[in-house]
Amino acid sequence: MTASNKFQPAWREDVPAEGTYRSIFKYDPKKFSHPSAAWYEMFKKEFNMTDDDFKKRQPGGDEKVVLKQKPGLSEAQINAFISIVGKENVAADDFSRAKYGHGKSLDENLALRQQAADRVPDLVIHPRNKEDVARIVAYCNGQKIPIITYGAGSGVVLGMRSDKGGIVLVMGTHMNKVLSINDLNQTAVVQPGILGPDFEAALNDAPRLFNAARRYTCGHFPQSFELASVGGWILALGSGQASTYYGDAYDIVVSQEYVTPAGIIRTRDIPGTATGPKVNDIMKGSEGAYGILVEVTLKIFRYMPENRQRFAFMFPSWEAAVNASREIIQAEFGRPAVLRISDPEETEIGLKLKGFNDGLLDKLLRFRGLMPMKRCLCIGTVEGEKGYTRHVKKEVSKIAHRAGAMSLTGYATRQWEHGRYSDVHMREDLLDYGIIIDTLETGVSWENLHRLHQGVRSFVKSRPGTICTTHASHFYPQGTNLYFIMILKPKDSEEFFRFRSKVVDAIVANGGSVSHHHGIGRMFAPWIENYLGREQMDVLRALKRHFDPNGIMNPGGTLGLDPKL
Amino acid sequence: MTASNKFQPAWREDVPAEGTYRSIFKYDPKKFSHPSAAWYEMFKKEFNMTDDDFKKRQPGGDEKVVLKQKPGLSEAQINAFISIVGKENVAADDFSRAKYGHGKSLDENLALRQQAADRVPDLVIHPRNKEDVARIVAYCNGQKIPIITYGAGSGVVLGMRSDKGGIVLVMGTHMNKVLSINDLNQTAVVQPGILGPDFEAALNDAPRLFNAARRYTCGHFPQSFELASVGGWILALGSGQASTYYGDAYDIVVSQEYVTPAGIIRTRDIPGTATGPKVNDIMKGSEGAYGILVEVTLKIFRYMPENRQRFAFMFPSWEAAVNASREIIQAEFGRPAVLRISDPEETEIGLKLKGFNDGLLDKLLRFRGLMPMKRCLCIGTVEGEKGYTRHVKKEVSKIAHRAGAMSLTGYATRQWEHGRYSDVHMREDLLDYGIIIDTLETGVSWENLHRLHQGVRSFVKSRPGTICTTHASHFYPQGTNLYFIMILKPKDSEEFFRFRSKVVDAIVANGGSVSHHHGIGRMFAPWIENYLGREQMDVLRALKRHFDPNGIMNPGGTLGLDPKL
Repeated sequence: MTASNKFQPAWREDVPAEGTYRSIFKYDPKKFSHPSAAWYEMFKKEFNMTDDDFKKRQPGGDEKVVLKQKPGLSEAQINAFISIVGKENVAADDFSRAKYGHGKSLDENLALRQQAADRVPDLVIHPRNKEDVARIVAYCNGQKIPIITYGAGSGVVLGMRSDKGGIVLVMGTHMNKVLSINDLNQTAVVQPGILGPDFEAALNDAPRLFNAARRYTCGHFPQSFELASVGGWILALGSGQASTYYGDAYDIVVSQEYVTPAGIIRTRDIPGTATGPKVNDIMKGSEGAYGILVEVTLKIFRYMPENRQRFAFMFPSWEAAVNASREIIQAEFGRPAVLRISDPEETEIGLKLKGFNDGLLDKLLRFRGLMPMKRCLCIGTVEGEKGYTRHVKKEVSKIAHRAGAMSLTGYATRQWEHGRYSDVHMREDLLDYGIIIDTLETGVSWENLHRLHQGVRSFVKSRPGTICTTHASHFYPQGTNLYFIMILKPKDSEEFFRFRSKVVDAIVANGGSVSHHHGIGRMFAPWIENYLGREQMDVLRALKRHFDPNGIMNPGGTLGLDPKL
Repeated sequence: MTASNKFQPAWREDVPAEGTYRSIFKYDPKKFSHPSAAWYEMFKKEFNMTDDDFKKRQPGGDEKVVLKQKPGLSEAQINAFISIVGKENVAADDFSRAKYGHGKSLDENLALRQQAADRVPDLVIHPRNKEDVARIVAYCNGQKIPIITYGAGSGVVLGMRSDKGGIVLVMGTHMNKVLSINDLNQTAVVQPGILGPDFEAALNDAPRLFNAARRYTCGHFPQSFELASVGGWILALGSGQASTYYGDAYDIVVSQEYVTPAGIIRTRDIPGTATGPKVNDIMKGSEGAYGILVEVTLKIFRYMPENRQRFAFMFPSWEAAVNASREIIQAEFGRPAVLRISDPEETEIGLKLKGFNDGLLDKLLRFRGLMPMKRCLCIGTVEGEKGYTRHVKKEVSKIAHRAGAMSLTGYATRQWEHGRYSDVHMREDLLDYGIIIDTLETGVSWENLHRLHQGVRSFVKSRPGTICTTHASHFYPQGTNLYFIMILKPKDSEEFFRFRSKVVDAIVANGGSVSHHHGIGRMFAPWIENYLGREQMDVLRALKRHFDPNGIMNPGGTLGLDPKL
């Protein structure tokens, strides 16, 4: 029997029907990424599954959305909103309320597969501009109507659940434009609902679209690039895959405008100031609990893809890869844009899934002393001016070779680039057969990295049949992040959630942050006070009371700010 | 008559007597920097002065300090402080109260020359450690005793005036140590009272002192380097002269510990997080109004002076120098450490004062089309890894040459380095003869730079007999700063203060920030609400109410937080 005759599951490739739960929870209704035969074999082996287990699917959420609870707003309230934004920008149907009431967390996915959509807004509103938002916030504040903000719905931390009903503002429908580009300041003014690809396309094409002097790039390319809004980047403190060079979302913001119940906060485009604590920075990461971002001025960067350099190495060990990465980011010869090191399990699975685990490459690697379950893959790119990118690549290579790494050329990096945004779509195929893939991520100092990696891994791997791969992909001179991908087939979702909760415990107990770039939302709120300490939480709560005395802004526990609601 | 026979004022070179006003307001009692003969000639010409005007000095503050008001604390209160820190760490004598109740602003200097020291603390306390500070703050909060914090007293914005009496905490006496160095994280934990040179010396000598793996540098070298404390860098948001590469004080802070009336804020050493608004950043720039910094973890950098590159250019015009600087900071080939461009008046005065305005250099410059009152000096350095510094210098040179600049080699930069910390001491010589030298500085976007420069200059120069030199010395891709140095002989100090106030008006009216790196204090508080807007000020006031409900932390209008007191 040839490989092609082997049984393969009938991975779904149908675009979910309109109005269904599945059309809500699928990252992108029209995009698919299926497990390869190698993935499939791995699942069967790791989870003791047989072909038969892949013949019948789990509930797929193909039903049309029907909500139990009716909208809780009065006729007068609904009419007030209509008078602000127009009838065509208000929706109260079940599907809209469910769609704009959910993010893309695993938790929401599993619930929607079971047709459970019980904490959704009463009304969906598509504001046309910031003046609409100001009028809506003022009205809601007077009426004490909760407001959730929906950027593009890609959040994975339960950040936009309507625990108290109210309205959801969909920022991506109208408020999705690049308003201007400033060549002198190298900034772009954008509306928060714009998606990454639209923003990047506008910047790349700035000479034609904005009569700009040159082409630009936004520098921010999170894995969710195709799914997330610029506002979401900032409100949940995201990091792009090239953050090691361009900075995190926190770093690329120049100035912002927020509508809050306490008034409009509009900060200035001055890059350096000594005028007291920076309110511009206080607003970042506020996850909708302080106000609504309605306009932002971002740093932009010269677009020079012709200068991009790629590198990839196989290091003999995790320690060697970590030490080399630390040297790269501390040595002051410039910085790579992408830098990513995979731990032994992630490296080995990656090789296996690409069929490299027993071929010529594997032989060559072993010959060079790069042994399975010890060797670690490193990939990266360098961006910037031509001589700079060449120099950085040269210095990176020197460090890698000194550490006993073998160059894999830029091939591995191109492979990674190919799947960087699409791999996420595989989640549905797995869930269709009861296999969970979920991720947790954390920031950590260099000093705590190994303790954290080992501490979390040892807990995760203590559960039999749990794949756990880890990489570090955002580097700072003072530390990095760790990104844990767990794949398992739990007895049921409750078992998984209990397990995941203990992994978070292990992260925090071992010196990691509760999140590096996903945010807190309601999912991680139970850990935040212990992590930050009561005194810091008291500061965030004092700001909450100031901005939102009536508790209408994303209420229901986001960021741990109003757990008693 | 030869030059050497010409009259020269008897610039003072005596160390002020102990206990005198002069020993307080002089930047450093033991350091002197006198105007050259060329400076002296310039003063006479610009201010219509004669040799006779330099034969009799203004009041020099040589009297022993005697205060009119007696300490306002009760015996019981004083004893309470003694019981916390020990008798040897408490002082109530007039001189101590005056010394630790003043910064180094021109305003304080002029007042002290007139023996006016009327807003000083009741008691001077030298805390031994952060536990002392916690106990003192708790006690003061209960007793509603105001607390001013004195780092090293180099502030120039009236940031530590005891408008309401109370105590001053002197951080530099005991809390002045490097506590540890972490090679892995490239961080140092320091106490806030340490002076720049002590910190830098410890870092340079880290292998011997801390058994560290290598030598480090702090990367932060403000003009006040020899006079300012690390805590002051952070609380007033300073910028070092190499900030273009190393970042501002804001950027080099990893984590902090503050004692506030609302409890102790201790943030974590994790460089990247998505755990809500960053309280660590909120505290920076709080100028003693929220709490007292008792410990800080700072980024440190590899010390590689052997790789330093220097450059200096003469540009044909201010526009050419500005455009080239913008290109340098936006072109993504790395960054210079020091970068500094002087406007035509500063350039010309610099040449004149060094005797270069009518010699061979001037001829050569003119021959190259670099004409007086158009040409602009640019100096700079590059730091980092060897290949990096070479590459950056090469690219800077390319840009300069394309802009029609002439290289002056690194000589001009070495000259500048020589006087970078000592030139400030010249202030006393000038004030001794009624000549005022004062500075104002502002942050600005590239887009507003010329409008701001011209707007401020045209106002300043509208006053006859006013020298005004300007440079930009802290560069960001989105803008820079402008630093205005004004030298004039006003009728009296009141005339000067009215004039300075209007210059600040002109700065803000033309799109500059109220401060780029000096801070706000009480001096610029009257402009801050208009500059930030009421909504941002309300945020800062809400934080004030949270941290300091009894209004004891640096009260009296600092940062515009409690103007009604």
